[in-house]
Amino acid sequence: MKVDSCIFCSIVSGHSKAEIIYQDSTFVALLDKYPFSMGHTLVIPRKHYEDLLKMPKEEVGNLYCMVSIIASAISKALKSEGLNIGQNNGRAANQIIPHVHVHVIPRFKRDIVSGRWPSRHLANDLELHEISDKIRSVLPTNNITG
Amino acid sequence: MKVDSCIFCSIVSGHSKAEIIYQDSTFVALLDKYPFSMGHTLVIPRKHYEDLLKMPKEEVGNLYCMVSIIASAISKALKSEGLNIGQNNGRAANQIIPHVHVHVIPRFKRDIVSGRWPSRHLANDLELHEISDKIRSVLPTNNITG
Repeated sequence: MKVDSCIFCSIVSGHSKAEIIYQDSTFVALLDKYPFSMGHTLVIPRKHYEDLLKMPKEEVGNLYCMVSIIASAISKALKSEGLNIGQNNGRAANQIIPHVHVHVIPRFKRDIVSGRWPSRHLANDLELHEISDKIRSVLPTNNITG
Repeated sequence: MKVDSCIFCSIVSGHSKAEIIYQDSTFVALLDKYPFSMGHTLVIPRKHYEDLLKMPKEEVGNLYCMVSIIASAISKALKSEGLNIGQNNGRAANQIIPHVHVHVIPRFKRDIVSGRWPSRHLANDLELHEISDKIRSVLPTNNITG
């Protein structure tokens, strides 16, 4: 996929809409439109890297430093009982969009049905906006989302 | 779980055996005894943190900087076609051992049966040792595993 047809590059540049919970000069965190759970967030670098193996290791470290901040905010804002943090590289590992993105998936025991987590679903905009407001309210003040 | 009954603390201190592929003064990387795939590795901080939310964000960044190095070595040594990188926090998110550990799971299309990845299995020691040798051979020379 070329950078000019990458949906995450389009979101980062402001050409496509997304429910953004945090952004600074290096990273953007947004709510997944097809969440596994309430508050499922993607943390992405502004710079396009196809996968983690193509990203300098120092930038990987900085990305996950930001993931740590976002995960704490999600946990605090939504009172989650657990958190899965995952990142896929390559089609063989189920990476769908070839721009590095880290999934932060809060877990709530009430979501488990017959011993299994629910599948992804299309979230509605109002739901995403309310969740986004909650998470933003506990994030650091250098958030330039406004 | 107390630190003195933590299996990862026991491995880090040398009291329990493991197939270690890398270690330095801060991190240890070892092969999972119950791998999802050939080369499934765990990267852990020597210092005991129950989960990522309890770890200072700079240390989370350093941990994933190391994960990036280990993931590249696994990919190169085993010629994997993809990589899943995952980390669970809390029982509600399926964290089994309450000492921070990052799963690095190489993926090979040949493993997929009927559209699904295989379940975890108990690996034998010889198999683990051979894989460990392969990965160690491409890792940086500051590896103090010997």
